[in-house]
Amino acid sequence: MIYVSRKEHFNAAHKLYNPNWTEEKNAEVFGPCANANWHGHNFELITTVKGTPDPETGFVVDLKQLSNLIRDKVIDKLDHKNLNMDVDFMLGKMASCEILVMEIWKILQPEVARITPNGQLHSLKLYETPRNFVEYFGE
Amino acid sequence: MIYVSRKEHFNAAHKLYNPNWTEEKNAEVFGPCANANWHGHNFELITTVKGTPDPETGFVVDLKQLSNLIRDKVIDKLDHKNLNMDVDFMLGKMASCEILVMEIWKILQPEVARITPNGQLHSLKLYETPRNFVEYFGE
Amino acid sequence: MIYVSRKEHFNAAHKLYNPNWTEEKNAEVFGPCANANWHGHNFELITTVKGTPDPETGFVVDLKQLSNLIRDKVIDKLDHKNLNMDVDFMLGKMASCEILVMEIWKILQPEVARITPNGQLHSLKLYETPRNFVEYFGE
Amino acid sequence: MIYVSRKEHFNAAHKLYNPNWTEEKNAEVFGPCANANWHGHNFELITTVKGTPDPETGFVVDLKQLSNLIRDKVIDKLDHKNLNMDVDFMLGKMASCEILVMEIWKILQPEVARITPNGQLHSLKLYETPRNFVEYFGE
Amino acid sequence: MIYVSRKEHFNAAHKLYNPNWTEEKNAEVFGPCANANWHGHNFELITTVKGTPDPETGFVVDLKQLSNLIRDKVIDKLDHKNLNMDVDFMLGKMASCEILVMEIWKILQPEVARITPNGQLHSLKLYETPRNFVEYFGE
Amino acid sequence: MIYVSRKEHFNAAHKLYNPNWTEEKNAEVFGPCANANWHGHNFELITTVKGTPDPETGFVVDLKQLSNLIRDKVIDKLDHKNLNMDVDFMLGKMASCEILVMEIWKILQPEVARITPNGQLHSLKLYETPRNFVEYFGE
Repeated sequence: MIYVSRKEHFNAAHKLYNPNWTEEKNAEVFGPCANANWHGHNFELITTVKGTPDPETGFVVDLKQLSNLIRDKVIDKLDHKNLNMDVDFMLGKMASCEILVMEIWKILQPEVARITPNGQLHSLKLYETPRNFVEYFGE
Repeated sequence: MIYVSRKEHFNAAHKLYNPNWTEEKNAEVFGPCANANWHGHNFELITTVKGTPDPETGFVVDLKQLSNLIRDKVIDKLDHKNLNMDVDFMLGKMASCEILVMEIWKILQPEVARITPNGQLHSLKLYETPRNFVEYFGE
Repeated sequence: MIYVSRKEHFNAAHKLYNPNWTEEKNAEVFGPCANANWHGHNFELITTVKGTPDPETGFVVDLKQLSNLIRDKVIDKLDHKNLNMDVDFMLGKMASCEILVMEIWKILQPEVARITPNGQLHSLKLYETPRNFVEYFGE
Repeated sequence: MIYVSRKEHFNAAHKLYNPNWTEEKNAEVFGPCANANWHGHNFELITTVKGTPDPETGFVVDLKQLSNLIRDKVIDKLDHKNLNMDVDFMLGKMASCEILVMEIWKILQPEVARITPNGQLHSLKLYETPRNFVEYFGE
Repeated sequence: MIYVSRKEHFNAAHKLYNPNWTEEKNAEVFGPCANANWHGHNFELITTVKGTPDPETGFVVDLKQLSNLIRDKVIDKLDHKNLNMDVDFMLGKMASCEILVMEIWKILQPEVARITPNGQLHSLKLYETPRNFVEYFGE
Repeated sequence: MIYVSRKEHFNAAHKLYNPNWTEEKNAEVFGPCANANWHGHNFELITTVKGTPDPETGFVVDLKQLSNLIRDKVIDKLDHKNLNMDVDFMLGKMASCEILVMEIWKILQPEVARITPNGQLHSLKLYETPRNFVEYFGE
């Protein structure tokens, strides 16, 4: 079993805001992250696929194909977008990294299975900044 | 003459948008950077001061004092903010890195002169992403 | 289950030195790391908390609160200090990264449990240099 | 149990090419990676050893000794070399990162066991670029 | 005057080899860099354009347009190639970073002038590794 | 004229302390950097040599030879040392980066001239942390 990873990036705006709370409670809980007019980040997304190498290619997964898949299904929906307003799969959800990474998993898990017969999605790691990041293994 | 630098960061939202243009022209010229609902970045700002070291301290400038100055005068106004809407010194201006770095210079140049009798502001380098950045020397 | 991480840094001096050994044996085993007058590093500490996101905040843990906790309980005791001489929880212990990361665990484990009712400390990763680092999972 | 890691680098040329296939099929499957005249990378190899710290040294493994071992047994055979042509343990194998990391494991696993009586090789992580990398745990 | 930079990368093979010398002299002068079967690197190229921002866009140069230009005219000729054998503008020249960066300048200087009426190419910085790099200002 | 750079690193302890001042004044001016028992850093030193490439080698300077020179003359005296106590050329001087980089210049300038007949030392850049650094051009 080998774990193969590809890092992609996207630049997006968001805010942390619970619509069921008052402005005061949002400001108190989320601090500057609740700024009404948004803020943003250069996000980095590391997708890890595990499996056994195909003897004819030496590949668990073709990284060019994996990169194209991630860009088509995920990055194009997030890059230069507002995570709270512009992204169909995030509408009505908290725009935290924890929630975002779980939603990206739902999209990528079946797509990775489709292109890698001898592999599967293992983990997603999402950097909001070089100092703040989350990782998800699908359960 | 020694050049002393301090790197600080801030996370902000912005868009590139010329209000004198139609939506179509903005989209054509700025592409996804004109996204109506904003996008954002982890910015890094490198401030470089030049001067001769004080013989008693070995310092051109006290980097702790310089860091506090940059945070008080610049970072606190930009971090977790919208560059087009929330920043007094950017109102009515294009929110490009080129314009932003020139406006930061106007703020920091006299402040650096005030705290470093044997030095002066030499340059400002502003990273929008690790691959896109600008530098300004004050003229 | 989501794994949420925060990176903090500190700058410290230390040496590797076993007081039960002769100078010669210390020099032989630890080489330049046993230099009598110390050397030092820019350390980076990555704290990872695992748990389920709170539905109201989207957070496993408030990273601002986690950052403040790590700074108060750990970084303030290590930054700009001598790991062999100035740090109460390292006195009488070998100042290796392995021992240091286990001692930091003892401090942070109950504190993380206290601030994250739906999470727990998962791992600590400590970089001594970008090329040398250790990781600990609590057992 | 502590996990201790050392990062080493090497610069090498390679191509992805299956000699049982036509030129056309190699070009179709491997794209520019099949370029007849080779291409190359700055590789980074992270070796992780797990074990319990020796009470006399505070070490799971002496990182200087581990670094020397990795250089002698692996890096010297790969650095400034052609992975397809110059490396004895890669001859006749696909020069993918997946295959390379498994071959490096076979070399390092017994050597690490020899120098670390209270530890063992845990994982190898191999970066081909900062965006493409693989990890292997020995099975 | 603002200095605007864009970083692009390419992966290539090369060797340092003077065809007027014996094998022995090549090995003596260039060491492992003369390895007959090549080695390679992940190169990073930073292109810096200087000029005054256009008042309507806030841009010295459209970085998307600059990126496309660099990729079309330079990166596509270098990426996944052999610098000694596959690159028309390097044939018959030493494949050192010094020579490569001067040849890239000849290509990009007129192209940058064409797309940036209020700017010009200022410098090219070429990283062969994170520890070895060259810079050229056109003269 | 091409500018060729080599980055080397060293790990050292130091403190900022003026022996002509009281403890109180040292603490007031230098803050935690005056900690009596030292602190330390992973320093990075970038040496830049400028010159014209030799037509037979394509080199301004042989980077292997330059690296060996920097290690022999500078790094070996600084690595795993105390900058205030162990380094002959820093005795009696303030152990600030500004002073250190000027002293390194005095050592390297004639040595670089000796090994590069068609080049000269252009600048030294010294990183104390990734956020604090100085640069010196020899005057």
